[in-house]
Amino acid sequence: MPEQPAPSLAQPGEIAQLIGPRNKTFIVQLKPGERLQTHNGIIEHADLIGQSWGRQVSSHLGKKFLVLQPNLNEVLLNLRRATTIMYPKDIGFILMNMAIGPGQRVLEAGSGSGGFTIALAHAVGPDGHVFSYEAREENQEVALDNVKRVGLADRVTFKQRDIEEGFDETGMDALFLDLPNPEDYLAQARAALKPGGFFGSLLPTTNQVGLLLNALESKDFKFVEVCEIMLRYYNPVGKRLRPEHRMIAHTGYLIFARPIEIASTVSKIQSEASGE
Amino acid sequence: MPEQPAPSLAQPGEIAQLIGPRNKTFIVQLKPGERLQTHNGIIEHADLIGQSWGRQVSSHLGKKFLVLQPNLNEVLLNLRRATTIMYPKDIGFILMNMAIGPGQRVLEAGSGSGGFTIALAHAVGPDGHVFSYEAREENQEVALDNVKRVGLADRVTFKQRDIEEGFDETGMDALFLDLPNPEDYLAQARAALKPGGFFGSLLPTTNQVGLLLNALESKDFKFVEVCEIMLRYYNPVGKRLRPEHRMIAHTGYLIFARPIEIASTVSKIQSEASGE
Amino acid sequence: MPEQPAPSLAQPGEIAQLIGPRNKTFIVQLKPGERLQTHNGIIEHADLIGQSWGRQVSSHLGKKFLVLQPNLNEVLLNLRRATTIMYPKDIGFILMNMAIGPGQRVLEAGSGSGGFTIALAHAVGPDGHVFSYEAREENQEVALDNVKRVGLADRVTFKQRDIEEGFDETGMDALFLDLPNPEDYLAQARAALKPGGFFGSLLPTTNQVGLLLNALESKDFKFVEVCEIMLRYYNPVGKRLRPEHRMIAHTGYLIFARPIEIASTVSKIQSEASGE
Amino acid sequence: MPEQPAPSLAQPGEIAQLIGPRNKTFIVQLKPGERLQTHNGIIEHADLIGQSWGRQVSSHLGKKFLVLQPNLNEVLLNLRRATTIMYPKDIGFILMNMAIGPGQRVLEAGSGSGGFTIALAHAVGPDGHVFSYEAREENQEVALDNVKRVGLADRVTFKQRDIEEGFDETGMDALFLDLPNPEDYLAQARAALKPGGFFGSLLPTTNQVGLLLNALESKDFKFVEVCEIMLRYYNPVGKRLRPEHRMIAHTGYLIFARPIEIASTVSKIQSEASGE
Repeated sequence: MPEQPAPSLAQPGEIAQLIGPRNKTFIVQLKPGERLQTHNGIIEHADLIGQSWGRQVSSHLGKKFLVLQPNLNEVLLNLRRATTIMYPKDIGFILMNMAIGPGQRVLEAGSGSGGFTIALAHAVGPDGHVFSYEAREENQEVALDNVKRVGLADRVTFKQRDIEEGFDETGMDALFLDLPNPEDYLAQARAALKPGGFFGSLLPTTNQVGLLLNALESKDFKFVEVCEIMLRYYNPVGKRLRPEHRMIAHTGYLIFARPIEIASTVSKIQSEASGE
Repeated sequence: MPEQPAPSLAQPGEIAQLIGPRNKTFIVQLKPGERLQTHNGIIEHADLIGQSWGRQVSSHLGKKFLVLQPNLNEVLLNLRRATTIMYPKDIGFILMNMAIGPGQRVLEAGSGSGGFTIALAHAVGPDGHVFSYEAREENQEVALDNVKRVGLADRVTFKQRDIEEGFDETGMDALFLDLPNPEDYLAQARAALKPGGFFGSLLPTTNQVGLLLNALESKDFKFVEVCEIMLRYYNPVGKRLRPEHRMIAHTGYLIFARPIEIASTVSKIQSEASGE
Repeated sequence: MPEQPAPSLAQPGEIAQLIGPRNKTFIVQLKPGERLQTHNGIIEHADLIGQSWGRQVSSHLGKKFLVLQPNLNEVLLNLRRATTIMYPKDIGFILMNMAIGPGQRVLEAGSGSGGFTIALAHAVGPDGHVFSYEAREENQEVALDNVKRVGLADRVTFKQRDIEEGFDETGMDALFLDLPNPEDYLAQARAALKPGGFFGSLLPTTNQVGLLLNALESKDFKFVEVCEIMLRYYNPVGKRLRPEHRMIAHTGYLIFARPIEIASTVSKIQSEASGE
Repeated sequence: MPEQPAPSLAQPGEIAQLIGPRNKTFIVQLKPGERLQTHNGIIEHADLIGQSWGRQVSSHLGKKFLVLQPNLNEVLLNLRRATTIMYPKDIGFILMNMAIGPGQRVLEAGSGSGGFTIALAHAVGPDGHVFSYEAREENQEVALDNVKRVGLADRVTFKQRDIEEGFDETGMDALFLDLPNPEDYLAQARAALKPGGFFGSLLPTTNQVGLLLNALESKDFKFVEVCEIMLRYYNPVGKRLRPEHRMIAHTGYLIFARPIEIASTVSKIQSEASGE
């Protein structure tokens, strides 16, 4: 396999992060003919496309902007927000634990501000697809807008609807409920998932987790896991290495489970496992 | 987009997790004509292919096995091991923070037991590629074997070599050093990465982190971050919800940085940022 | 105040920790005429009394024992156990948060194995007193035995009784309920505490914490706090400093509150506080 | 032992916490003839002494103040500050781990703002004593002022001096170095401690911990421990129980060790211990 220097140059359709004076950050999808307007001047996308990443460009006012490819953290921090958004520390673990990757078909409800939608659409790639349900029209508009901004709209089907009536899709690889009362929609989730598919949820309070756990047990979901992820940043100075003084102490509890058909056998498996 | 029930059926080439008596777990790539041999009997792959996931099958000795698609956690737990392997809690965050997704070209050194290699190969999908360097031949053999077992060998190029002499590739989207002394290979890493690309490393001790931070600073890497991720599982019982009594307290510190060309300007940006 | 070298010598009545072959540890109260019998030989207390701490002594079999004064952690680890014992990480914070110190009169229920009783008796000193209630006779016998072993029996009054019927004492400085259902005894606790005194409890599950919080609110306890303490040890090697690989992830949630008489005023104070 | 309702009434010399409008808090030692002046009016100590704790009083302007006994957390939060102060989560564990209690003679350097001094003076009671060294005169004045405010001055001997020249005291039960470079004063610490006494330190960075660990090893301190304590508060609402969204991520690393005379034997003990 030969070396391929081409990808080092920014391509149309790619997402760029521009970091201007005072570290003000802009996230844009590169499109020939479009321009970024800022208080520090205008930058033509055409001046970025075909150029190397990691370089500086000047706005028409002569202000310098550094041009990078953003990671998901930076993308999420710059979204329009209608709701609380999920944190990368949680998203990364969810994707791993629910085996979400290229080519998969996954479902989420609700859409929220589209932050997790973007992470899912990025992970499933061009061959996968995301179905995103949301009851509130105004939220879904924000989510759609955010997904469009990062050029992933063709990988997402939004449906504005109360999921009480169920999902249109079946055979989903994974399904995530980011709702206050996921315990009310387990039958609908099971109908949409492939047998043994990956079910997940994120809940802020222990009371909600308790309700979901009780429902998962009564509805024959198995391999139930509950966890939380704590992310601690350090002051990145080699001679004085120490944790930052403050951190996010809580975003939510993560709950994972899998709908299994043959309850009797599996519960035997489970009880053996817990008995060791 | 119509409903697509087809993916619910196991396909040749997919990875299956078989959970047999006493929860003994087997991870296999489904291939017509192959068979899984266990102490509880033989299972023909042909009896799994085309069948629904989440079902039970019987071995030739009449023992029951549950057939699921595994997540990465379960795949990693069942690898052959030559070395310590990275944990899913860390891998998930690394993938997010280094923006690793479908279509990307990424490089790691060393290969270790291939656990992180598998995670990378899964994330970049069929259109991406992983280059994996390792100095020890015996490790790389284990890594290659593990990557083959999960059917991802065509996405990975292994190179057995001391990376002191540098990497063959350039323009990499992301590069990860899972080595005791990453500070010795920053010039090589910069040469392989696209400008502004994503550099990452994982180190177990604070002393190593300090050495790497000093080297990153002297070598003009910017946007340096150090963090650690703590994963706490809960006893998943709704009526008695509490954390598990014990947890993994430490796997390693994660370090991220980006090679930037124009040092003078960016260090100004950085100092402004830290000044707020 | 002159220098006082005398305290360096072990006195009758003091608690000693003897560390013998294979680090086997013994905790004894020094009494002239008594002897410690071990598999590695006999040590006469008389050979320790009046000698310097931090020295080695030999048993009659010629085995070496190091003689130290123990901290509470070491005392607790060497108690006879009838029940789970409280951890020093929690005890230390409880003592601070409930202002328990020399001269105070404090009450606990139940006695458990006497570990927390010992910590309380140590903290209140010879001028304070501990009242320890326990419903189960067999537990209290273990607690009494442990308290005697460390020479603190004269600071503790044990009462074997169901606390449903209330406590004999009033005007307590602090009262701690180490029971599964503290919410059932809040009226009794209030009657025993001085107005505005310190109430505390430790509970393992979130469900129990929820029940107690609801009861505290309905019973006009104020300044309610819930917290948990995580203690992480490091591998104490200067050249390879890192956290230990495993840790205790959970012992219990700590709940603190104070019974206030004038509910109307204080609830106003509270709501103002939460409004900021 | 009869019931003793008397302690429920505030006594001269006790410390009171007054919580006025907008939860503004004042910590005072009750002295007949003194008065507390606030923006919400004046309160005569005489109106508090002999009255029940947990009651409300009115200032001369008719504003209501709740009168409580404070815990150490509240005392520390209301100190004058010359320096960073130690946190109750750390202090509680230090006291437990260094076996500090009634009647003991302990030494600290430096005095800082006197917060830890107050905790020590409270714990050792009227029969113990605290020796507090500080190089900076202005710090020690603040510490002395704070210690006086809470009525503990007779339990503390302050010495303003560079500890390079050593301590006047010997036979100390415990000695704590709250300094940036404790590794430079281990010989002085050993000379002041009784053999096998308790040595402790708190350091913010991993680099400092490494230096101290190396020095402790070379100076034959044994039973070395390094740990950190994380305190997480919960939103105390029974129906929506969850951790607070933010927490203190780092105050410092705690280091404990004990000076042992007979190095050869003990190092054998240690190596056996670490070998298991």
